[in-house]
Amino acid sequence: MTQFNEAELTDAVIKSFDGTPDPRVKFLMQELVASLHDYVRKTNLTFDEWGAAIDFLTRTGQTCTASRQEFILLSDVLGVSMLVDAVNHRERAGATETTVLGPFYVGEHRVTPHGTDISADLKGEKMFVQGRVTDLSGAPLAGAAVDVWHADDEGFYDSQRPSYASDGPSSRARFLTDADGRFFFRTILPCSYPIPTDGPVGQMIVSTKRHPMRPAHVHFLVDAKGHEPLITHVFVGGDAYLDSDVVFGVKDELVAQVEPRSDAVMPDGKLAVGPWHLMTYDFRMKPGAGVAPKPLGAVTPEPA
Amino acid sequence: MTQFNEAELTDAVIKSFDGTPDPRVKFLMQELVASLHDYVRKTNLTFDEWGAAIDFLTRTGQTCTASRQEFILLSDVLGVSMLVDAVNHRERAGATETTVLGPFYVGEHRVTPHGTDISADLKGEKMFVQGRVTDLSGAPLAGAAVDVWHADDEGFYDSQRPSYASDGPSSRARFLTDADGRFFFRTILPCSYPIPTDGPVGQMIVSTKRHPMRPAHVHFLVDAKGHEPLITHVFVGGDAYLDSDVVFGVKDELVAQVEPRSDAVMPDGKLAVGPWHLMTYDFRMKPGAGVAPKPLGAVTPEPA
Repeated sequence: MTQFNEAELTDAVIKSFDGTPDPRVKFLMQELVASLHDYVRKTNLTFDEWGAAIDFLTRTGQTCTASRQEFILLSDVLGVSMLVDAVNHRERAGATETTVLGPFYVGEHRVTPHGTDISADLKGEKMFVQGRVTDLSGAPLAGAAVDVWHADDEGFYDSQRPSYASDGPSSRARFLTDADGRFFFRTILPCSYPIPTDGPVGQMIVSTKRHPMRPAHVHFLVDAKGHEPLITHVFVGGDAYLDSDVVFGVKDELVAQVEPRSDAVMPDGKLAVGPWHLMTYDFRMKPGAGVAPKPLGAVTPEPA
Repeated sequence: MTQFNEAELTDAVIKSFDGTPDPRVKFLMQELVASLHDYVRKTNLTFDEWGAAIDFLTRTGQTCTASRQEFILLSDVLGVSMLVDAVNHRERAGATETTVLGPFYVGEHRVTPHGTDISADLKGEKMFVQGRVTDLSGAPLAGAAVDVWHADDEGFYDSQRPSYASDGPSSRARFLTDADGRFFFRTILPCSYPIPTDGPVGQMIVSTKRHPMRPAHVHFLVDAKGHEPLITHVFVGGDAYLDSDVVFGVKDELVAQVEPRSDAVMPDGKLAVGPWHLMTYDFRMKPGAGVAPKPLGAVTPEPA
């Protein structure tokens, strides 16, 4: 007959995964069991606390939709996403720094001509964004895919708006670098914004008296042949939340000094209408391989 | 400006919870961060593995319904539920042993007269169940609520059947002990059964080559005034899976020798129709307080 004390129980659960065919999966599951059990023993977790955790995780899963990923948000605010980023990018070798993907990547951005205003229908201060994609030596990488997405002037991503289903994407696009590795587009200056506080993760942040703010940034996902896909942000210099990003995503090198301009002509030779801002950022790609991430949206339960 | 190496990142996330008003919540969150970060560092978790975990957790949440709790099932098969049980019941002082609540408790069972056949509409071998609820000295506890639930002859709980919504509960009931602390009822002999393998948790068990079986048992939740609520099972002696329960829930003392009988009269004086089984189990309650658990079913997302 089998009957366990606390230590024997942990050993028995670990041993139950001994037959896992994939050695890496076996290692991950056995370490997970050890880690979870250590946590329960160290905290003497009560039934009510366990029940609250079950309830929290259930609500987190049920808050996910095709355009909202609450578990990525949870990973982000607990610093797990940045740590996964860190342990996978220990050696940058001069390549541009990485940061979190975030929960609002919906992928499959439409290839868009350089210079396009990707936020044409939105209010906000105008911004011209330009940059180059190069290898570590500074040589241009032509035909690299540069995916961009950012929040609007009120801090919402298009996918958070009810109009997303009918109007389609806004402030999202893919550009393909030219022969000189360049890309450029028009948009609005994004602002700092709170993570969604209407779901379980945001409510946890509020109830623990953390602030829910992210400093203003533009997301970039750069994919060039023969190089590791680069997932990063460019942050707007001077933002009040650069030192306390709720997802711990800021790195010094990723902060751009966005310049207020009043030139009548923008860098692509077209006329400006009123004042504008200039964001310039170049990306240095690390040689290697890899597949750009697929968007992690809501998942339909497997059929019963 | 804030930029973290791996260790500084963990410290920063822990520190972000310094202002949590409730000291216990603060402790639980900070230990959670430390534990999760240790896991990521120790395993050098890859992006693909992180993505698979996000996807798994999302599907687990989305598999939960009003009558199915996939996160409790996950906690069960990782031995977490039994460990929470263990750390909260270190001193039994002669009281009946506890085990997991399981994911199929739906609560609010209807008070039912003693002797009722709670599986009258099901096929299976007949069983008469009887017992007493006492305090640690063996003195009867009258008016104690004895909630019971168990799987049918094919290993399914009523709430797993499509007919549950229309036909209502089956093989579930609440009995109130008489002046002598006794309860008794008729039902069928439950059988060993697999946890559901059509969801993410069952798929994980299958893909890691663990078997998904639980030994046959009847769930009991006994609630007597002035005593700790008792959550336990009574297992059917001789079951092939007593030594390898997928949720690690078996304790020696909880195994009952279920006796095959051919007596023409059952213990309550009524006639038997053919052969039957007798399960006898007495519960000794620990003095104390506490609230019986509420069922943890699916949760509706908070309104946006």
